[in-house]
Amino acid sequence: MRISELATRSGVPVATIKYYLREKLLPEGERSSPTQAAYGQAHVQRLGVIRALVDAGVGIAGVRKVVAVLEEPPENPYDLLGAANAAVTPAVSADLDLTAALALLERMGGSVEACFPDQVAAVAHALATLDRAGFTVPEPVMDAYLAHLGALAEAELAATPDTSIEDAVRYVVLGTALVEPLILALRRVAEQVAASRRFGAGGA
Amino acid sequence: MRISELATRSGVPVATIKYYLREKLLPEGERSSPTQAAYGQAHVQRLGVIRALVDAGVGIAGVRKVVAVLEEPPENPYDLLGAANAAVTPAVSADLDLTAALALLERMGGSVEACFPDQVAAVAHALATLDRAGFTVPEPVMDAYLAHLGALAEAELAATPDTSIEDAVRYVVLGTALVEPLILALRRVAEQVAASRRFGAGGA
Repeated sequence: MRISELATRSGVPVATIKYYLREKLLPEGERSSPTQAAYGQAHVQRLGVIRALVDAGVGIAGVRKVVAVLEEPPENPYDLLGAANAAVTPAVSADLDLTAALALLERMGGSVEACFPDQVAAVAHALATLDRAGFTVPEPVMDAYLAHLGALAEAELAATPDTSIEDAVRYVVLGTALVEPLILALRRVAEQVAASRRFGAGGA
Repeated sequence: MRISELATRSGVPVATIKYYLREKLLPEGERSSPTQAAYGQAHVQRLGVIRALVDAGVGIAGVRKVVAVLEEPPENPYDLLGAANAAVTPAVSADLDLTAALALLERMGGSVEACFPDQVAAVAHALATLDRAGFTVPEPVMDAYLAHLGALAEAELAATPDTSIEDAVRYVVLGTALVEPLILALRRVAEQVAASRRFGAGGA
């Protein structure tokens, strides 16, 4: 198909598609003449992934990393998960105290060797932000976070498709980045449901 | 204390404090002379909350809503939770299909009356984003989300402090907005721990 049809089918304007082509986020179409290129279903799919990541708040640098993982997926599923995860994990300041984060990691049953530095740093950064605001997560709540997020991760991992490496990458990358807004939205709804159960109130 | 000391104690530059004063996010200090005002511990605390929210990615409009809840907390705990939640929930487009979101809400044991429209819309928006990317959350994974996020919300709610309305508001507002990065970071670490357990791999 031509670029105009690609725009219609994907819902992405031609100018934006050209921008993604220049940024090498989207592979070039097949040249059919010096001024024309033909695009296929793979382009529609890739545009869907890019738009979803952008909508989810992932910056162009993050999208670029995801595209790199999609184009050259690592063979080991563990490295795959790590690369996908790292692609959508924003880097945080390196001079953080990791003590509390490592303690949580241990309570979760994990070791520091099992994790990527950026991931531990992200936990440390989140804890530092809470600390700065003078907010302490009560111990029983932290226990609940560790237990339930652990169980949730096990369920997610168990469902990783084994049909092809592309399917697995897609599942991990999108499942990591795109599912986050869903998890946060469901948590807020769950809090509201729990509150209405506890306080017996009707609604806004 | 004078504004220079407030800046030192809070770690927020004087110019930024003046901006927050102009924006009415921070109450005026007590006038001690026509050109000087005295600030207290409440200002240090408020600045901590504002900085934490800004660091967590909440915009000025959201900060303003949180400040409004802190200054005039609703009496009913259910309304309190809703107002706090709404203050830090970004509004999403209103023309969303809510069918799937309402079905999830029902599976969670909640009713539409128990929830604020923005919260249901946020779930619908997250589902639409996944849909656009061609990503489907596998059913057993969705079941895990609903069960574990429900349990997590119950634990959070059970720990709401009953010492004062300010404490409760602070807990709910900060616990909703500021804990999100921690939850996401812990989920990623949990995935990595689960992956290392499953695939027996060492590290990056």
